[in-house]
Amino acid sequence: MGTFNHYVIVKFNDGVAVEELVQGLEKMISGIEHVKSFEWGKDIESHDMLRQGFTHAFLMTFNGKEDFNAFQNHPNHIEFSKIFSPAVDKIVVLDFPSNLVKAPA
Amino acid sequence: MGTFNHYVIVKFNDGVAVEELVQGLEKMISGIEHVKSFEWGKDIESHDMLRQGFTHAFLMTFNGKEDFNAFQNHPNHIEFSKIFSPAVDKIVVLDFPSNLVKAPA
Repeated sequence: MGTFNHYVIVKFNDGVAVEELVQGLEKMISGIEHVKSFEWGKDIESHDMLRQGFTHAFLMTFNGKEDFNAFQNHPNHIEFSKIFSPAVDKIVVLDFPSNLVKAPA
Repeated sequence: MGTFNHYVIVKFNDGVAVEELVQGLEKMISGIEHVKSFEWGKDIESHDMLRQGFTHAFLMTFNGKEDFNAFQNHPNHIEFSKIFSPAVDKIVVLDFPSNLVKAPA
């Protein structure tokens, strides 16, 4: 069964304390019960041409769109956005019901 | 425990038979044992400004970088790329060891 997914891909501005910011993000998300899962990573591998300057990916999953909406409107999320948004140089966000083709064993 | 993740975000060229292409992708990936999980989605939700023209996200996970490399070099993957690549208008690829902050319940 698929989830409702929220993918965020980011290039941060120069000089941003990214580790600190991600720690804040982890803390914020861990405190919101509507989030089913959260993982993130920093690219170490793909070609410059394919990475297009983006460095970080964040993936949140939700049991459904209602939980996603509750997360979007959660006061802690809105509050954190005030810190996160000014740190962002480039961003792509995709929100969609996931088609789970091959589930983890 | 985190996985090694391969995220691909795509905008396809006009006129591409996307459903057919994604079916081929599902088939190709299902046949390669090194892939731990595979899910994908078509954006239905995010704002145009945040979506930046991208429409599809594909997420594959692997038990480690070795399995990812085996997938990258798998003949079925290389063969499928000959069909996939010409269909792509814009693409971002990020490859990274995942930090799993909140696991699915």
